[in-house]
Amino acid sequence: MKSKALFFLALLLLTASYQASAQRHEMSIPDIPGYVTLKCDFHTHTVFSDGEVWPTQRVIEAWEDGLDAIAITDHIEYLPHKDFIKTNYNAGWEISQQTAENLNIILVHGAEITRKMPPGHLNALFIKDANELTDPDLMKTVEAAVKQGAFIQYNHPGWKAQEPDGIPKLYPLHKELIAKGWLNGIEYYNDQEYYPLVLDMCRDNKLTVMGNSDIHGVISENYPYPQYTHRPVTLVFAKDRSSESLREALFAGRTAVWYGDEIAGFKEYTEPLFYASIVIDRPFKTDEKNVWFEIKNNSDIPFFLVNGEDGAPKEIDIPAHSSTVIKAGKQFEGKAMKYDVKNIITGNGQILNVSIAVESK
Amino acid sequence: MKSKALFFLALLLLTASYQASAQRHEMSIPDIPGYVTLKCDFHTHTVFSDGEVWPTQRVIEAWEDGLDAIAITDHIEYLPHKDFIKTNYNAGWEISQQTAENLNIILVHGAEITRKMPPGHLNALFIKDANELTDPDLMKTVEAAVKQGAFIQYNHPGWKAQEPDGIPKLYPLHKELIAKGWLNGIEYYNDQEYYPLVLDMCRDNKLTVMGNSDIHGVISENYPYPQYTHRPVTLVFAKDRSSESLREALFAGRTAVWYGDEIAGFKEYTEPLFYASIVIDRPFKTDEKNVWFEIKNNSDIPFFLVNGEDGAPKEIDIPAHSSTVIKAGKQFEGKAMKYDVKNIITGNGQILNVSIAVESK
Amino acid sequence: MKSKALFFLALLLLTASYQASAQRHEMSIPDIPGYVTLKCDFHTHTVFSDGEVWPTQRVIEAWEDGLDAIAITDHIEYLPHKDFIKTNYNAGWEISQQTAENLNIILVHGAEITRKMPPGHLNALFIKDANELTDPDLMKTVEAAVKQGAFIQYNHPGWKAQEPDGIPKLYPLHKELIAKGWLNGIEYYNDQEYYPLVLDMCRDNKLTVMGNSDIHGVISENYPYPQYTHRPVTLVFAKDRSSESLREALFAGRTAVWYGDEIAGFKEYTEPLFYASIVIDRPFKTDEKNVWFEIKNNSDIPFFLVNGEDGAPKEIDIPAHSSTVIKAGKQFEGKAMKYDVKNIITGNGQILNVSIAVESK
Amino acid sequence: MKSKALFFLALLLLTASYQASAQRHEMSIPDIPGYVTLKCDFHTHTVFSDGEVWPTQRVIEAWEDGLDAIAITDHIEYLPHKDFIKTNYNAGWEISQQTAENLNIILVHGAEITRKMPPGHLNALFIKDANELTDPDLMKTVEAAVKQGAFIQYNHPGWKAQEPDGIPKLYPLHKELIAKGWLNGIEYYNDQEYYPLVLDMCRDNKLTVMGNSDIHGVISENYPYPQYTHRPVTLVFAKDRSSESLREALFAGRTAVWYGDEIAGFKEYTEPLFYASIVIDRPFKTDEKNVWFEIKNNSDIPFFLVNGEDGAPKEIDIPAHSSTVIKAGKQFEGKAMKYDVKNIITGNGQILNVSIAVESK
Repeated sequence: MKSKALFFLALLLLTASYQASAQRHEMSIPDIPGYVTLKCDFHTHTVFSDGEVWPTQRVIEAWEDGLDAIAITDHIEYLPHKDFIKTNYNAGWEISQQTAENLNIILVHGAEITRKMPPGHLNALFIKDANELTDPDLMKTVEAAVKQGAFIQYNHPGWKAQEPDGIPKLYPLHKELIAKGWLNGIEYYNDQEYYPLVLDMCRDNKLTVMGNSDIHGVISENYPYPQYTHRPVTLVFAKDRSSESLREALFAGRTAVWYGDEIAGFKEYTEPLFYASIVIDRPFKTDEKNVWFEIKNNSDIPFFLVNGEDGAPKEIDIPAHSSTVIKAGKQFEGKAMKYDVKNIITGNGQILNVSIAVESK
Repeated sequence: MKSKALFFLALLLLTASYQASAQRHEMSIPDIPGYVTLKCDFHTHTVFSDGEVWPTQRVIEAWEDGLDAIAITDHIEYLPHKDFIKTNYNAGWEISQQTAENLNIILVHGAEITRKMPPGHLNALFIKDANELTDPDLMKTVEAAVKQGAFIQYNHPGWKAQEPDGIPKLYPLHKELIAKGWLNGIEYYNDQEYYPLVLDMCRDNKLTVMGNSDIHGVISENYPYPQYTHRPVTLVFAKDRSSESLREALFAGRTAVWYGDEIAGFKEYTEPLFYASIVIDRPFKTDEKNVWFEIKNNSDIPFFLVNGEDGAPKEIDIPAHSSTVIKAGKQFEGKAMKYDVKNIITGNGQILNVSIAVESK
Repeated sequence: MKSKALFFLALLLLTASYQASAQRHEMSIPDIPGYVTLKCDFHTHTVFSDGEVWPTQRVIEAWEDGLDAIAITDHIEYLPHKDFIKTNYNAGWEISQQTAENLNIILVHGAEITRKMPPGHLNALFIKDANELTDPDLMKTVEAAVKQGAFIQYNHPGWKAQEPDGIPKLYPLHKELIAKGWLNGIEYYNDQEYYPLVLDMCRDNKLTVMGNSDIHGVISENYPYPQYTHRPVTLVFAKDRSSESLREALFAGRTAVWYGDEIAGFKEYTEPLFYASIVIDRPFKTDEKNVWFEIKNNSDIPFFLVNGEDGAPKEIDIPAHSSTVIKAGKQFEGKAMKYDVKNIITGNGQILNVSIAVESK
Repeated sequence: MKSKALFFLALLLLTASYQASAQRHEMSIPDIPGYVTLKCDFHTHTVFSDGEVWPTQRVIEAWEDGLDAIAITDHIEYLPHKDFIKTNYNAGWEISQQTAENLNIILVHGAEITRKMPPGHLNALFIKDANELTDPDLMKTVEAAVKQGAFIQYNHPGWKAQEPDGIPKLYPLHKELIAKGWLNGIEYYNDQEYYPLVLDMCRDNKLTVMGNSDIHGVISENYPYPQYTHRPVTLVFAKDRSSESLREALFAGRTAVWYGDEIAGFKEYTEPLFYASIVIDRPFKTDEKNVWFEIKNNSDIPFFLVNGEDGAPKEIDIPAHSSTVIKAGKQFEGKAMKYDVKNIITGNGQILNVSIAVESK
């Protein structure tokens, strides 16, 4: 009996006038007990090697994406723009420092040591001067980076251009670097690729699991809304939000990685991350056979629980920022239901096991 | 130097397979000190009057939209479907109760008393039996509703079909109802319309400010993503999440209303809602002239601050789930900056004044 | 050197004020030589059986989705709402006729004969009076429908509730119906399901390939933007846009079906549909080794070409309403490149083969 | 009676695997009688002046946006990156030529002569060598550009940094340039700004109406989906799709400009553009009082018709790629309905008048 007639002018005008301004979307990933969760991308390029953007753009993209830290890691040995650009391996760092400081982004000074396989491409992170990392002798260059305090990351170990079968490997040279403490982490995610074997490789060699964008173009084009909600990121569990604590946490191996709907990382970090993300409410209804309750997910990460026991739902989806109504058998009241989390990978062929504790009404 | 080659198959498959399932998007509006904030729509129609959907659909829509409570309020006096439907004024309530119980939605039993102006259309909420509300004598019908415990809401007071100049008015009949305690709230928002004078009208007569969808069709078509993030809602500040507390809070006038980017309500509720929504971080940078800090907005409501003082930004936008970097003059360190919040309406021509407290670094 | 300052007010206001109104999005599927392509959904439900919406809503949804024709096919034998609704098997048709006429939608009078397997569920389309289709004897009911002129469609033949292994079958009863000419088409798509064997089953028995939504809830919720651009539809190649021609084309088997990014149908219809959708431009560049040209896709259907020959791209994606730049070996100038179209299914395990003719510059 | 059970795996996998690849969205703007409509942006920046991206990115963005032509117009006199970049005013042109050729984009060699007001900023388009345009004497620099064949465009004439009242003006210096034929067009749209007086200014001085992005950052961030469907563009009505014809059409003044939902341009071009965009179908229904017919809009431009005569709809919205059902009085059958098109601006305070011809059924 009511047709739409008037038009809510003032309101829509207001709406329209603010939508276009640049903004930072907070990435909702909870802290875990004892640590703050820093969202980081440790692998990006600019016009100073083979990237498409000016260094400040990388910092602005990081700010818009809700990141805490970003490394600019231009290639040392690959400079296709050199006819137009003055060669300065620190240019990305020098140009973007001020922007990072004003946007409260932790800027990590980095460079990509770009060699044939082995060892392939290595990112040196937390360096002081990239211009010292130019010795053709790989070991001398890595040593120079390590002397500056660098954390060394083995990039895209299964990249087919260097590893035609797509399977990441640790060659003798990598093992030598690991033995010296000169290799500290490996990328599980790089760009659109992932390398399932990297989790076990990191566990066996006490290395840190990394996940980064390796962006050359523009983030908003490579991860367009709404298909892609975020680039690959490394979640770092740090003592506080500072460059020093970030570096400490990386050397200590306290990370998990996130891309698409998938989290990968060791159980000691992914398990508390799961429990910090969800809230299991007290049951709102019971009858003689069943109990009904809600699980809320306050994070940006969806969780897909599978392999429910008899009497419990076989599968439970808890999408990001959503809640799910669970109807379970009365026998679970005051007890717990066991599940596997399909999208939290803890090792090669392993996924996280969790317990959903059901309170009494 | 790296082109995209491999395709992250497992991940995308996982993503795709879960996006289509029905889900509840939590509406992120904070509680305020002493009260939980319930998100409610007290005005909806079904096929049992002139709506397009079966009653359970209204409950499912409410669940998907992150609401806490919904009233089905079919017209008593307007039944265009009666050749095909059996007349039963409680049908909406009877059919949807079970669905509401299983989805943990507070279902409010209601009906729309549909008369000429005055008094126009009145929603009776929290009734027991709509079949008793059919007396052609308006006062007898309202009295019957009140005896059942009803909260009476004056619907769309500026609807042009009944009020051609679009200006809401309180006629002698309305004043008589108010004097008897038989009129308890007025809609500020109805569908796409709003009535600016309602705020003062409610304050002067100690009535409750209401905002509802009056949906006849389908919510997802009338408020399509991504232009419209939500229907008009009444935010009710209740002692707990129960039907009784919801009713108590409505009679006590503890509400604000929200549509588009605009909040309307008395200062005593909108002010704590503003402060509960934002977090002002400690400054992350200072120099001799300025101080830099972030304001985070954890709610779904954006805030647009205007009329900044000298040395402070003239305007500050704090979009929903975003954070904003503020650069202000050193003189504000340890003090506060005064602003008006352009999109929080507290009365006719009045907007909320707030203080942004700046800590010392 | 230029910062954004002014705000383009008039423009944005204009934009905002029109976005909310209901509108018909044209579905861009080209006609094929000799026929117009009608976009149809022959399987929908309303509150008059177990659906969630009033019949007019189905017509409005069809209009908004850019369809040409819709059938309302409420169950005859399954009436869960009968305590609240007066039983009238023609109600959907009676109620929605006027709306269809005013929106230029071809409304097909239908009903779903809802039996155990075999024969399972059968849609009778183009009937005159559903109230005559209530005989418990299936053959009598089908005969009554056929006498009214009905086209009989075998619905979701692999639906697990009736066919636990998910494999569609033709039982002796189906074969008897086919022999009498009382079974005329089978659903390849139903809702989110598809049945790969149906294409060959239709070819072998001279039946029509059908694809429909079987919608019970709301189209905009079940196929939400932006993940789902459309419901499953039957594309009917008709002599003109009329109810009579639509019926003639169905009996003649001139259809293809479309859901997601996939088209299924016999080569005689899918091949001209492919060629009518794309435009291959004259080469815009050549050198001694290669030729460059563009392929434009004017339809809503993307095409994914695979198995390119040596010297031609191995794969070519031509997204909907997009164009693709092709670089091919000089030897193809004035000749054609052979491809398989990965997303056009012509039979069990068969996909469409096409030729991309390359002009000389 | 049917619940969703099976999951259409193959289909969704297929869908997912192709969405991320770069693609060109065709911009659907029809040609007009006698001319092809080229979509162009004649004002963009790169890292070689104060932009954020490498020149090839501008060409890729143009290709993705469905443009036909793009000019890179870095500042001559403003080089904030010069400590890191080798100064070469032709760098943008040299670097991006190959990419443009391979993507079939017409690349216009340009530069922005960046002076105080008057004359403010002037784009020299279709030049041969930007390194010759560095004389501090403005007239000498413009003369050098003109000798190279340049079309000279007066940029953002109401930009508040140079024109504090925001009102575009023609100073004596501009009039001198116009008299010599050294000033050929003026921007009506620049970035998010527009200058209403420019249309009359162009008509009075026989100059060309221009509309451009003046992009410094990234197109996909400045015009994010889905709020902004496109950047400001100049539509050029050219004899064919070539650089020479594009230049000829600009000098001949055959343009219109498009941003948001608004088109601006002289009636001789916007009127045929309107009629080429829509199709008025033969009536599909008549009764004794009314006639019903559809108007289809095949373009990306919505049209908002206002000021309908008695018996005709007061307003008609014809959204992009949509169709609208019109119900008009019988008296219009075989006649025409007069309207104003609210969003086609033909002069200061003037909008386009059109006739909607109604056929007989």
